[in-house]
Amino acid sequence: MTVAHLHPGQRMSEAVRVGDIVFLAGQIPDDLSSGIELQTRQVLDGIDRVMAELGGSKSDVVSVQVWLADMADFPGMNAVWDAWVDKKAPPARATCGVALARPGMRVEMVAVAALRTR
Amino acid sequence: MTVAHLHPGQRMSEAVRVGDIVFLAGQIPDDLSSGIELQTRQVLDGIDRVMAELGGSKSDVVSVQVWLADMADFPGMNAVWDAWVDKKAPPARATCGVALARPGMRVEMVAVAALRTR
Amino acid sequence: MTVAHLHPGQRMSEAVRVGDIVFLAGQIPDDLSSGIELQTRQVLDGIDRVMAELGGSKSDVVSVQVWLADMADFPGMNAVWDAWVDKKAPPARATCGVALARPGMRVEMVAVAALRTR
Repeated sequence: MTVAHLHPGQRMSEAVRVGDIVFLAGQIPDDLSSGIELQTRQVLDGIDRVMAELGGSKSDVVSVQVWLADMADFPGMNAVWDAWVDKKAPPARATCGVALARPGMRVEMVAVAALRTR
Repeated sequence: MTVAHLHPGQRMSEAVRVGDIVFLAGQIPDDLSSGIELQTRQVLDGIDRVMAELGGSKSDVVSVQVWLADMADFPGMNAVWDAWVDKKAPPARATCGVALARPGMRVEMVAVAALRTR
Repeated sequence: MTVAHLHPGQRMSEAVRVGDIVFLAGQIPDDLSSGIELQTRQVLDGIDRVMAELGGSKSDVVSVQVWLADMADFPGMNAVWDAWVDKKAPPARATCGVALARPGMRVEMVAVAALRTR
C-alpha cells in the first residue's frame, strides 16, 4: 500500500490516496454570494478538478456526504447534482443540514473515490 | 480492485463496493410518523437488508455515523442499537445532531462495511 | 483482508481495521468544562493514543471530519490543530457545526487512518 498526499498544506491535504481509495477534503464553493445552484456547481467543479488531478473522473467517486446550511436548498442542490452525476456509476450518498464554515456558504461535499492502480 | 454499484439509480447507488470495502448510502426510516425507537429499528433493518444483498451481515459493518434530528433521541436510539449490534464485532461509531432531509425524520445512518473477497 | 476490532465494547469499537485502513470511533474530549483549545487538545490526544495502540501515529491519519458545537470555535480549534498536524502528511479534512452528544462538548473528530501491513 502507498499513501500519497495531493497538495499537502499547512492545515490539510486536498486529498489523500491510500492504495486504490482516495479521501477528498471537503469541497466548498468559491462565490459565497451566489445561490444554491451555482454554489453546488462550484463544489462539483471542485470534485471534478481534484479527480482529474488524480487521473480519474466523477465516475470514480464512490461516496459523498452532502452538507447543506439550509435543508430548504435540498431541491436546488439535487437539480444540479442530478445533471452532473454519472448515472452508470452514481456514488452512495447521504445529505444533512449543518452549520458551515463561513457566512454565505450553502453547501459542502465530502467525497471518497476509488482509482485503479496504475 | 473492482468497483461494483448496488442498485445504481438516477441520483445515487444504494451502496458502492471497492474491493473489500463497501460504502452505503444514508439509510433512512420508512415511517416518519413513528418515534425514535421504531425509526432506529427501520434504519437498522435497512442496513441488514443491504448487507444481506451484498452477501454479508451487520457483523461486517465497520463504521457508522449516526445522525439524529434531536440529540434528545440519543438514549432511545442507543437502546435499539445496543440490542442490534454484534457485540463480538461492533463498528466504530460517532453520533451527532443535524437537520435531516424530511420533516419527521429522526435518524439516518451512514455506514461503511468490509466484505471478504469471494 | 483481515478485520480487527480495537477495544470492542457493548456499543462500539474504539477503531476497526480493514486491511490497511482503520476507521476510528468519534474522538471526544474528557473535560467538558474546558474551552475549545483544551477540548481540541484532548481530542487530538485521543487520536494520538488510538494511533499509537495501532502501531502508528498522527502521520498515518488520512481523513478527518471535525464536528464543532459552535462554528465560532473554528479559529480556536484550528490553532491547536495547526500546531498538531504533521505538515509533511496532513489529512484531508472537512469541518461543520452540529449538535454534539453531551452538554459542554465543543468538538468531536471522526478519523480514518492508513497503516502499513506488518
